[in-house]
Amino acid sequence: MYVHIVDKKKDGIVVRGAKMHQTGATNSHEILVMPTLALKGGEKDYAVCFALPLNAPGITLFFGRQVNDTRRLEGGKIDLGNYDYGIVGGECLITFEDVFVPEERVFMAGEVESSRDLVTRFATAHRQNYGGCRVGIADVMIGAIALLAEIQGIDKFSHVREKLVDLVYLAERLYACSLSCSAEGKPTPSGAYFADTMLANVTKLTASQVFYDLSRGLHEIAGGFVATTPSEQDFKNPEEAKLLNKYFECKAGVPAEYRIRLGRYIENITSSTPFLEFMHGAGSPQTQRAMLFREADFEAKKRLAKKVVGIP
Amino acid sequence: MYVHIVDKKKDGIVVRGAKMHQTGATNSHEILVMPTLALKGGEKDYAVCFALPLNAPGITLFFGRQVNDTRRLEGGKIDLGNYDYGIVGGECLITFEDVFVPEERVFMAGEVESSRDLVTRFATAHRQNYGGCRVGIADVMIGAIALLAEIQGIDKFSHVREKLVDLVYLAERLYACSLSCSAEGKPTPSGAYFADTMLANVTKLTASQVFYDLSRGLHEIAGGFVATTPSEQDFKNPEEAKLLNKYFECKAGVPAEYRIRLGRYIENITSSTPFLEFMHGAGSPQTQRAMLFREADFEAKKRLAKKVVGIP
Amino acid sequence: MYVHIVDKKKDGIVVRGAKMHQTGATNSHEILVMPTLALKGGEKDYAVCFALPLNAPGITLFFGRQVNDTRRLEGGKIDLGNYDYGIVGGECLITFEDVFVPEERVFMAGEVESSRDLVTRFATAHRQNYGGCRVGIADVMIGAIALLAEIQGIDKFSHVREKLVDLVYLAERLYACSLSCSAEGKPTPSGAYFADTMLANVTKLTASQVFYDLSRGLHEIAGGFVATTPSEQDFKNPEEAKLLNKYFECKAGVPAEYRIRLGRYIENITSSTPFLEFMHGAGSPQTQRAMLFREADFEAKKRLAKKVVGIP
Amino acid sequence: MYVHIVDKKKDGIVVRGAKMHQTGATNSHEILVMPTLALKGGEKDYAVCFALPLNAPGITLFFGRQVNDTRRLEGGKIDLGNYDYGIVGGECLITFEDVFVPEERVFMAGEVESSRDLVTRFATAHRQNYGGCRVGIADVMIGAIALLAEIQGIDKFSHVREKLVDLVYLAERLYACSLSCSAEGKPTPSGAYFADTMLANVTKLTASQVFYDLSRGLHEIAGGFVATTPSEQDFKNPEEAKLLNKYFECKAGVPAEYRIRLGRYIENITSSTPFLEFMHGAGSPQTQRAMLFREADFEAKKRLAKKVVGIP
Repeated sequence: MYVHIVDKKKDGIVVRGAKMHQTGATNSHEILVMPTLALKGGEKDYAVCFALPLNAPGITLFFGRQVNDTRRLEGGKIDLGNYDYGIVGGECLITFEDVFVPEERVFMAGEVESSRDLVTRFATAHRQNYGGCRVGIADVMIGAIALLAEIQGIDKFSHVREKLVDLVYLAERLYACSLSCSAEGKPTPSGAYFADTMLANVTKLTASQVFYDLSRGLHEIAGGFVATTPSEQDFKNPEEAKLLNKYFECKAGVPAEYRIRLGRYIENITSSTPFLEFMHGAGSPQTQRAMLFREADFEAKKRLAKKVVGIP
Repeated sequence: MYVHIVDKKKDGIVVRGAKMHQTGATNSHEILVMPTLALKGGEKDYAVCFALPLNAPGITLFFGRQVNDTRRLEGGKIDLGNYDYGIVGGECLITFEDVFVPEERVFMAGEVESSRDLVTRFATAHRQNYGGCRVGIADVMIGAIALLAEIQGIDKFSHVREKLVDLVYLAERLYACSLSCSAEGKPTPSGAYFADTMLANVTKLTASQVFYDLSRGLHEIAGGFVATTPSEQDFKNPEEAKLLNKYFECKAGVPAEYRIRLGRYIENITSSTPFLEFMHGAGSPQTQRAMLFREADFEAKKRLAKKVVGIP
Repeated sequence: MYVHIVDKKKDGIVVRGAKMHQTGATNSHEILVMPTLALKGGEKDYAVCFALPLNAPGITLFFGRQVNDTRRLEGGKIDLGNYDYGIVGGECLITFEDVFVPEERVFMAGEVESSRDLVTRFATAHRQNYGGCRVGIADVMIGAIALLAEIQGIDKFSHVREKLVDLVYLAERLYACSLSCSAEGKPTPSGAYFADTMLANVTKLTASQVFYDLSRGLHEIAGGFVATTPSEQDFKNPEEAKLLNKYFECKAGVPAEYRIRLGRYIENITSSTPFLEFMHGAGSPQTQRAMLFREADFEAKKRLAKKVVGIP
Repeated sequence: MYVHIVDKKKDGIVVRGAKMHQTGATNSHEILVMPTLALKGGEKDYAVCFALPLNAPGITLFFGRQVNDTRRLEGGKIDLGNYDYGIVGGECLITFEDVFVPEERVFMAGEVESSRDLVTRFATAHRQNYGGCRVGIADVMIGAIALLAEIQGIDKFSHVREKLVDLVYLAERLYACSLSCSAEGKPTPSGAYFADTMLANVTKLTASQVFYDLSRGLHEIAGGFVATTPSEQDFKNPEEAKLLNKYFECKAGVPAEYRIRLGRYIENITSSTPFLEFMHGAGSPQTQRAMLFREADFEAKKRLAKKVVGIP
């Protein structure tokens, strides 16, 4: 089912197969396709890399469903949780049914021996950035819960402060991973820098856990209202709004709406769609674990141990 | 804002305030209202317990928004994740604006001194059952991922088996907590049994963590398709269905639909609504921690330590 | 290397092999030997169970070294950490080199088909009690650190109280596991009760983790002095004692010695010997995980999932 | 009890007080004393920094007891666990009873306003290096257990490999923290570089947890023999040695002694002394948490959250 060459023409190749989980593809003009596995001898047809406009004949995009996706069609803004930055985008499945790729857009066709390097390079770069961009999300999450704690009047409680420190620790530790693999980057012959593979995999593996712990912290501090708040539409009915504003207001002078906005953001950012993205984006954790095993150099560590304990 | 007595009439009382987070209330004919805090001297008006039909004058129910709630209105079944058992229900906010409660429906009105016992009894019973009913959900979750692993052909992989064991351990450990507080239950003077308070709080505290770990395990084993699968509506278009069935099928002979159904169930059960329910249902974790501190009998433990280390 | 039958005489059997990790054997008059693995057809000679006095010809006991073992020979009491209850005992290796066992002391000799049951029964009973006896140790540990926090004047700090709650939670959750497998016990045909196998394995698996977390909590609250306190002998020199008492005293009126006693107890109870005992006593964690996999009844869980998601 | 100035002479100062937990002091010629707390107005006498030879009049060193310390006096090597690199050293308490410090060795005497900077600088540098030197220990520990797994013939088991990956992850994540705070270092006016304070505290906080998890992994893979092996002296008796070699040998051709050496190393490195050092060296975890709270810049994070959720 992976994308592969099914025919070779004089001026190009014909490909078939699917790419699943294509984040942001529906917002793009072109798609760059490359292998995601180190390939072996008999898999030459799968060693294919090319770029095409997404409206090329034979390409179909299937937009995936994500949590609360139809809230985008309701006309409101608050219930989306993150209107300005989260309204567009989504994952899609892309199928290629006998798609022709002209020669000048083909970057690889059969070079099985380069597939491992290509995949490792791509994976390392992608895993490196999980400690950067995800920490940006983590900072917004921490800011949201710190603000909500303040609005709800619990920000001075010692157990809340301890929980905020836990969240900061989680975010900064992930950031540290990303910085470290970048700092240990080495120049390739081309002059471009390549991040440290071991530490890039450590980064992504950390990212795949951290979001569950962050979410738990946010849920615990925020309280149950995140799951029980009425729709923003209810606030547009003056009669309802009167009661809702009365019972959702917390700190004097802070409108109930601000609390609701923060709650909605938390509701949406801590649902299965972002969880799965943190987990499987840039490769599933087990692939990172396989890299850790490969890169660990156990023999060097055994030599150290032999020296320390006195085994010749 | 808590429900409290604002007036006393010859034949009943008048109450005002709100009850937030009322699970299942919209499916009920009557609501039983009781205090949720141990009350002190000046809070007599808050020591109120009564039952009323939900359509009594002055009562308003605000149905809360929950993850993917409008999928219930779309006409399909699969995208809901759990159509037969999860279609109805939801949380609501209930406001009482000067609601009259006739005397015969009033069970408590000012008995501040009983409020602590009432709250502890209720909380203990509620926290006890978190290790029972939630383990039922956990068993379905484990069954779903075991089945999905089988369909996806990865159920024999050793790392998948280790992860399944992790999930079983989480579920059974929670179940153990619930059994223990029941087994240590003692009869009250009425003859009714009352679960062990310490162990009931341990049960709920365990439940508030376990769902994050269960979800992480399900997400890791299931893979990214849970977040990227198209709508069930796409499968109704024959042209789309042909491609989708081709690329979503895993094990020979198992229809793609089964995989999608399991993915949708996982998507929906691991979103913020159930997370928050596991977290804050039966009281927030910090309330359970406060009970652990209160019930721990540190003095007895200090006596043991003194004896062991030789301090008179 | 396992103990097995090497010869059969008219009035008994001759055995050879070793039993490792025999807790308490040096304090015992007799040893009861039984298989620790479910055996198969060709392993008849290993299906052997018998009891013998430990001074029978051919039996040798090798006493193992344990952390701080020679402090027992120094003549003091405090540095031992737990003089009254921890002074005796230890692990030993027992070798059987062609040891004769008279017929009347042989309980099993070749009944391969009973070995699995015998092992499961023994393991279940042993794993059950880890949630009982180890919680006793945990209670002493919690008492010691609560008392030390009080002596050091930090027991009212909110972060110390939160950490004490963490410790109580760990202990009570383990206790809950043990209670649950006992409460679910069922009578065997003999009338004797047999604990629930799944929950007994959950108990031991919990015990194998909990001690690391308990130790971490104790170390964190206690502070570094646990690793840097001088010997009790230093306190016997009046000149030294004057300075040590001055600088080790914490709370007015509490002798420095009490603090040292608690520190020594913590030093000794959180060292590798008890860690390893919690970990591998009653079988290593991986054996418990294997039992969880075997007892989980995934098929029943899959049926539940099928019903919920609508797979026939 | 902290070291402070009790008198000022024409040509120097007189100090009194104690420094606890002085790693390596007994191996040093001189001691550098500095404050460990940010000081306030009335604490001028405590703002003192100086260096002195350790045999200066009035200075007393009390050598602390550590796990298995007297094994150093037994004459063997194996039971020490790490003879070549771990034989010397230890912690001591140093008391200063009216010690005269000549002017030219006084670096600070009353500059309260500089104490905070001095402490932060020292703490940051010390916390930074925990992710470097401790990872060296972690690498030896991982090498030891990888080698032991090989000798015991379990290194190909999938669950052992998964556990080894867990250990590598723990070590590399700690290393990443240390690299990151160094990479983010900034030059001070003097030209010397100063590590990033937030990330240095993240490093130490990570170090204070990692050793418990590493130890758990080592104990689990190694098995119970680490706690039950006889003394190296037993191997010197030929009669005993014959039996011990027979029953401790694992892989053909690998002497039992190698297994014992590795076991002894693990026994000693995973005891309370190194645990406490990882925990409280460079300051206790709660001090690092306080720094995380101080350095987190919650206001900046709140501004991000406001922008994302639409609060003006």
